[in-house]
Amino acid sequence: MIQSFEELRNKLQQNGKCRKIAAVCVYDEATKSALNQCEQLGLAEIIYVNDDIPEEAANKAVAMVRNGEADVLMKGLIGTDQLLRAVLNKEHGLLPEGRILTHLTLAEIPTYHKMLFFSDAAVIPYPTHEQRIEQVRYASEVCHAMGIRQPRIALIHCSEKPSKRFPFVDGYKDICQMAKDGIYGDCIVDGPLDIKTACSLKALQAKGLQSPLMGETDVLIMPDIEAGNVFYKSMTLFAGAKTAGMLCGASHPVVVPSRGDCAEAKFNSILFALSSLPD
Amino acid sequence: MIQSFEELRNKLQQNGKCRKIAAVCVYDEATKSALNQCEQLGLAEIIYVNDDIPEEAANKAVAMVRNGEADVLMKGLIGTDQLLRAVLNKEHGLLPEGRILTHLTLAEIPTYHKMLFFSDAAVIPYPTHEQRIEQVRYASEVCHAMGIRQPRIALIHCSEKPSKRFPFVDGYKDICQMAKDGIYGDCIVDGPLDIKTACSLKALQAKGLQSPLMGETDVLIMPDIEAGNVFYKSMTLFAGAKTAGMLCGASHPVVVPSRGDCAEAKFNSILFALSSLPD
Repeated sequence: MIQSFEELRNKLQQNGKCRKIAAVCVYDEATKSALNQCEQLGLAEIIYVNDDIPEEAANKAVAMVRNGEADVLMKGLIGTDQLLRAVLNKEHGLLPEGRILTHLTLAEIPTYHKMLFFSDAAVIPYPTHEQRIEQVRYASEVCHAMGIRQPRIALIHCSEKPSKRFPFVDGYKDICQMAKDGIYGDCIVDGPLDIKTACSLKALQAKGLQSPLMGETDVLIMPDIEAGNVFYKSMTLFAGAKTAGMLCGASHPVVVPSRGDCAEAKFNSILFALSSLPD
Repeated sequence: MIQSFEELRNKLQQNGKCRKIAAVCVYDEATKSALNQCEQLGLAEIIYVNDDIPEEAANKAVAMVRNGEADVLMKGLIGTDQLLRAVLNKEHGLLPEGRILTHLTLAEIPTYHKMLFFSDAAVIPYPTHEQRIEQVRYASEVCHAMGIRQPRIALIHCSEKPSKRFPFVDGYKDICQMAKDGIYGDCIVDGPLDIKTACSLKALQAKGLQSPLMGETDVLIMPDIEAGNVFYKSMTLFAGAKTAGMLCGASHPVVVPSRGDCAEAKFNSILFALSSLPD
């Protein structure tokens, strides 16, 4: 169980590893400040990849990650689309065949007793069944890398009852079965559940329902990007949440903060990416 | 501007009107307690419509509302589907031709400076353009009835930029134009906006955007039921929100709380329905 970004930072410092970050087009104060902080804490060495032509900078940084010269790719003042074009390039990019790129957020919510992961608030609009299988896989892998032995993963839907009006929810049962069959390693997957029955045993019991998650969810797999984005934005605005985000599915973590993110949010995203790296 | 359910209750008491509520199959303590409280405060007279056959009770109560014997229809221990079958009946029901049934929630969120309405967390899965037009219309009407002179209505989407991947968002601009043309009465409609740019001037400005809503949104029109439901559940669980809900579009308000709702939530929903009635 991880409770805060502070705890993540302390763990990384105790771990004592210094990783390499290839940072693309770092021209803004927030990104600079976040990267400086990482360096000062001894968590990472930063390779600044600037170029007058942003596409060139992106290609160079991706090549470095691909060649093993860097462990994490980080976006500065460059369009996300421009950076992703380099990441997704079939010949020179970072996405192994058969993998998908999906966004994973980590939130520290003062009213929840542990950190909560959720996917996808930013990249895949309406996940197909195959994409959702991968979302669960990456979330489980990241949790394991971060020391959560048996992550509890909830497949979110507006109702606990499947209905013909939501055909994609039929796939949830398959995913639960795949988890039982062990394809995601040690984890518990259940759904459909709504946010409350996933994250509150009291709410689960009030509805007369049972779930092996027992209201102790670590990961929310959101039904679509609209739900993921509403959760992301409303937790930061109304529940005082701190968040971090990264892209999963590529060979290495890709950190793509919003331009508007403050230095702390960017720093947290780097912490998240570093924590997800294998030892 | 309304800030709390307490304020709503006080306004209704000052108003001094005693309305009639047709309550269907009231067998549970929470519903009884909520209705008793209304009666004790002099806000409503309750007509208890019980019958061994729930469908019969639903039909009787709907007929009373239709005949003007009651102003509000309220669900007790009966399935929502069973009650709605009576409401939607073409010959004897409550839905005028051309209208749609949609859910409107009212939330008191401690971290927002006024009450926030949103639609739809419970009924319409993926609103069509025509349904969204009606959602905005009903929300505007309810706000006006509740004394909000010029409601600010945000059409929510995960991004402020329309994209080909989300064709339904094209309709948002039409709805904004319809609002400017005055079809919703006095109100301001804008979108696409995300939750933060809709409800925070600071977030709007941090993204370099402009909106006539100025971060002072009263109503969120959600892109789909998944987003609406995630907002509903996460605000109550993580942001300490109190909520009330009702169905709009019928000739009279229909209160359909969840079975699991506590007496306070049911009482708030009745307050909401009573407040939305014309003088």
